[in-house]
Amino acid sequence: MPKVSDQHLAARKGQILDGARHCFAQYGYEGATVRRLEEATGLSRGAIFHHFRDKDALFLALCHEDAQRMAEVAAEQGLVQVMRDMLARPEEFNWLGTRLEIARRLRTDPEFRAGWSQRSAELTAATLARLERRKAAGRLRDDVPTDVLLGYLDLVLDGLIARIASGHADDNLSGVLDLVEASVRRKS
Amino acid sequence: MPKVSDQHLAARKGQILDGARHCFAQYGYEGATVRRLEEATGLSRGAIFHHFRDKDALFLALCHEDAQRMAEVAAEQGLVQVMRDMLARPEEFNWLGTRLEIARRLRTDPEFRAGWSQRSAELTAATLARLERRKAAGRLRDDVPTDVLLGYLDLVLDGLIARIASGHADDNLSGVLDLVEASVRRKS
Repeated sequence: MPKVSDQHLAARKGQILDGARHCFAQYGYEGATVRRLEEATGLSRGAIFHHFRDKDALFLALCHEDAQRMAEVAAEQGLVQVMRDMLARPEEFNWLGTRLEIARRLRTDPEFRAGWSQRSAELTAATLARLERRKAAGRLRDDVPTDVLLGYLDLVLDGLIARIASGHADDNLSGVLDLVEASVRRKS
Repeated sequence: MPKVSDQHLAARKGQILDGARHCFAQYGYEGATVRRLEEATGLSRGAIFHHFRDKDALFLALCHEDAQRMAEVAAEQGLVQVMRDMLARPEEFNWLGTRLEIARRLRTDPEFRAGWSQRSAELTAATLARLERRKAAGRLRDDVPTDVLLGYLDLVLDGLIARIASGHADDNLSGVLDLVEASVRRKS
């Protein structure tokens, strides 16, 4: 396939993803109807579903895109920095509330759950790799297994997503994240 | 009003709340239609909405009931114990996933948000009172303001609710809660 087509394809996919992100943030998962996705992306349903099999596929692609971006930050600066970024620009992460809407499906729909797990594994891997590196450098507390520290940071991330989704991310969360960061660090 | 009527009224309200809890857990907020609420409670819509103005009122009453129960535990044993209880019997807290579905409404619907805040204030007050008591007893770390510790515990609770709602509460969360508990405690 010639290169110009690849570029066109990527641009079109990006246009769809950006529009869908706004649409999900505004209307939620159920409320993001095909008609609203058309409006938000400026494309016909035929064009949208040429690139993404269905709404689930579109949703999981957004999760994947976010996970990749977050994984880059997590690999370099850790998961707490990912959370600080979310706190600094909560409006960019409003769409994550959609993740909460689909929580019940994660519990009850094995196929959807499998697709989801695959896409969030990247962030977990990046976070774990950084934790191991910090452990090797003697910067991480060593009285708690690394997988518990990972589970801890993941749990706090889930809490932060819930908080941002409900518009309550404005209180004292910066200080809370300082505390979280300090509690995985080796006491000097 | 004679006492037997009061008892009848309380029993009927309890019957509605129990049925609604199951209905929300199974179908989610949107999916808990009036017809399904009738089936789950064994009562007619007339009977249900005689006791609760609408579905929002029913939902907020459930939140209130939970917050009261949790507040009792939080007042005596702290918010981490509340979380340990949730972890021990996640199936009883499945309905909390509904809380996540309404996150967007908390952000965008001031009236609903006000009703919600009023009902979750009880748990916050109980947790704060216990933290202050422990601080006075020298059991709480004193290098972090109490409101930050409260915000921290609240954030972890939100994460745990998200985790239970998506059926992922089975990993290493007991060890994670040990870590959370230790990180608000005064180092001896």
